[in-house]
Amino acid sequence: MINAVLDHIKSRETESLARMKAFLRIPSISTDPDRKEDTRKAAHWILELFNGCGIQAELVETPGHPAVLADTGPGKGDGPTILVYGHYDVQPVGERSLWRTEPFDPTEVDGAIFARGSADDKGQVITHMLAAEAWKKAAGGLPIRVKFLIEGEEEIGSPNLRTVIESRREALKCDYVVLSDTAKLNWDIPAITYGTKGLIYKQIDITGPKQDLHSGAFGGTVTNPGNALARIIASMHDSKNRVAIPGFYDAVRALPDAERKALAALPYSEGDYLKMVGSPSLHGEEGYTTNERRWIRPTVDVNGVFGGFMAEGQSTIIPKQVGAKVSMRLVPDQEPETIGRLFDEHVQRVAPPGINVKVRTLASAGPYVCPLDLPGLVAAKAAIKDGYGKPPVLMREGGTLPILPMFKKLLGAESIMIGFSVPDCNLHGPNEFFHIDDFYKGIRTCAWLVHHLAKSQ
Amino acid sequence: MINAVLDHIKSRETESLARMKAFLRIPSISTDPDRKEDTRKAAHWILELFNGCGIQAELVETPGHPAVLADTGPGKGDGPTILVYGHYDVQPVGERSLWRTEPFDPTEVDGAIFARGSADDKGQVITHMLAAEAWKKAAGGLPIRVKFLIEGEEEIGSPNLRTVIESRREALKCDYVVLSDTAKLNWDIPAITYGTKGLIYKQIDITGPKQDLHSGAFGGTVTNPGNALARIIASMHDSKNRVAIPGFYDAVRALPDAERKALAALPYSEGDYLKMVGSPSLHGEEGYTTNERRWIRPTVDVNGVFGGFMAEGQSTIIPKQVGAKVSMRLVPDQEPETIGRLFDEHVQRVAPPGINVKVRTLASAGPYVCPLDLPGLVAAKAAIKDGYGKPPVLMREGGTLPILPMFKKLLGAESIMIGFSVPDCNLHGPNEFFHIDDFYKGIRTCAWLVHHLAKSQ
Repeated sequence: MINAVLDHIKSRETESLARMKAFLRIPSISTDPDRKEDTRKAAHWILELFNGCGIQAELVETPGHPAVLADTGPGKGDGPTILVYGHYDVQPVGERSLWRTEPFDPTEVDGAIFARGSADDKGQVITHMLAAEAWKKAAGGLPIRVKFLIEGEEEIGSPNLRTVIESRREALKCDYVVLSDTAKLNWDIPAITYGTKGLIYKQIDITGPKQDLHSGAFGGTVTNPGNALARIIASMHDSKNRVAIPGFYDAVRALPDAERKALAALPYSEGDYLKMVGSPSLHGEEGYTTNERRWIRPTVDVNGVFGGFMAEGQSTIIPKQVGAKVSMRLVPDQEPETIGRLFDEHVQRVAPPGINVKVRTLASAGPYVCPLDLPGLVAAKAAIKDGYGKPPVLMREGGTLPILPMFKKLLGAESIMIGFSVPDCNLHGPNEFFHIDDFYKGIRTCAWLVHHLAKSQ
Repeated sequence: MINAVLDHIKSRETESLARMKAFLRIPSISTDPDRKEDTRKAAHWILELFNGCGIQAELVETPGHPAVLADTGPGKGDGPTILVYGHYDVQPVGERSLWRTEPFDPTEVDGAIFARGSADDKGQVITHMLAAEAWKKAAGGLPIRVKFLIEGEEEIGSPNLRTVIESRREALKCDYVVLSDTAKLNWDIPAITYGTKGLIYKQIDITGPKQDLHSGAFGGTVTNPGNALARIIASMHDSKNRVAIPGFYDAVRALPDAERKALAALPYSEGDYLKMVGSPSLHGEEGYTTNERRWIRPTVDVNGVFGGFMAEGQSTIIPKQVGAKVSMRLVPDQEPETIGRLFDEHVQRVAPPGINVKVRTLASAGPYVCPLDLPGLVAAKAAIKDGYGKPPVLMREGGTLPILPMFKKLLGAESIMIGFSVPDCNLHGPNEFFHIDDFYKGIRTCAWLVHHLAKSQ
């Protein structure tokens, strides 16, 4: 059966590329009120694709942009049910002059399609749709049940996704969630991303005197909010760059030696990494490699500081108010609420007297790690090996995908991230691109995934 | 002789008040290019006052506003020569709607003259001119030589004052400089301010990655400039609020017990002070009182911090750049250059690796303290006692007057600060005022000063 499906995919590559381009031509910028109809148009485009191959699909309306739900129906065997999650909305174009091609006129350059949404996520999510279509057309149906949840609000923080899932919990029931919204390790090496960090984002606001004070007339007699802020932030790390907030590491799950060794075996060039970030040198928590620091160790970072006299020149004041934004990236099993509370308590504990300190939470999301022995993950590895002709590496990601712990909580399902783009695909920036070769291999990988999952139970 | 002078002053109080008001009506805002002619008009007004009573006076032109130089000529006795320093320029009006009277239409309210420049410094400097005039007219001359240097650029940082002094060093030669540009301790208690702090003002700029980095993708692998800044600033104080920059206190002159006791004896209400600053509570260097912290102990204060994401909401970045303004107030015998170098070295020493740290000096001025046994200071105390009917207290000032160490260096003269305004006279703000009673007592005090100085040798 899989061979017929692969033949079908192969023989229709040119057509598939044209369809992907048609999808990319719809400027579905979810944050832009002027693009509301275009965004809906993209949802309808998906609906038509599914309808065209006999996959039942519907729009689920929300106060914002609709989500597309689809379902291939029960599979032929007793394999698992998967839910493919993706999004049809895209980021704004940004600075138009920085684009070398028209963002909504997909253009082939050097074997890649340049267009907004080509990698994030239209070009990737459509690989799953085309694979399902190929199974329907070439094999008369799928050996497993595949459901789709393709939302139109990912780029604006998925404000209605939870409600959609909660209201359709039965329809979305699945064994695994599958996402293709991540990247390969690099241009050559396919990858499965099996973990993301959590996030808790805080704002610290410190007030002291009732107005800016003359630093000469009053200096030394009141606690300076600026000096206090520095003391508070400095207290968050020790001399080994470990986070010094008491209890911060208590829930951090120990990393199996095998996993650490596997991460250490990934290709990594300190020179390339340094060049990418542009810092004078690399530094972080003592006892860990750069990839471990990025992917498996929790962090505390200042995102911004502000207050007092910030213009050119000099003004000799004690500022009445200063503030900072501080975010923490979390790893299993750190709970955002617990870490947030430890942070708040620490800040108040180390704050010097003579000021008022307020801490607010601006964002909160849990970390996620997929069990490495999950049968679905094993099937995904085999699918990539067959789709790409080489096995994937297993990597983690320092960023946060709040939907992953949400899927786990609401649907009880683990998430499998197989991404086909490359790390430097200009996600969210100008000149976003997706390699055509990765597009074709992605469709094949998705077809293989259905095959391997059917055999995985 | 002094009695004739005092009688003359008494009999002309109403006329003197009218002349002060006329002086205040000239909107001599030195920073305002549209007021350039008005500013010059104020200089000419002074010139005419001196000419009218036979005191030789001239304008010294500068690239900005002219300075007025005047000289009563040799005194009758062998007493010291004094140089009265003051300024005829004023601050801008600021928010006009906050004024209850017209800033350049001097108005009497509850025994005070409300007008821009009434306290700072026209209303104060004119007391010396009127006293010198009274000596000329009622006594046929002054027992000591009194010179005047009244500049028009004090409110814009005296950019040409040094050049004026250097070019007229012989003409300005004196035993003491006398200034009336400070305040009494409070409404009831006259004061001599015998010390000001020095200032060294620094800007710290920290750069890390070549652009803002995603705090998830890169967090933990590079030194975060915001965290580094906090560490650097926090390192500047120890747990007792002492400055922790090595060598910072090395040159601090020990305070004689008598002086400390005298400061402790000054009327002080912690409740009033707290109300004025509006902080939750008072805190500072361990082992010192609030007045000692303000006046005799050097300080390090953040004036502003900035960098990264400073707007409402959240952005999860590692900022590529952050900065801070940090000023230090110095006491004798701390040299601004030395302390500045210790600061720079300390910052570089405690800066974590992985960032670039640049420190710039934005301002530098020395501290000043007048010897308490200076014969001129003793004479000033006697003058205030006679002018006010009560002895002055001796206090210091946390602010900086760069001209004082400059006078000391260029003219070899100590400075005596007798101020007649009150601390809450709305200096630089709306509704600046000067009590009429202080104006009259000020003129008498200046007359007495000439008398006591003549007897002081």
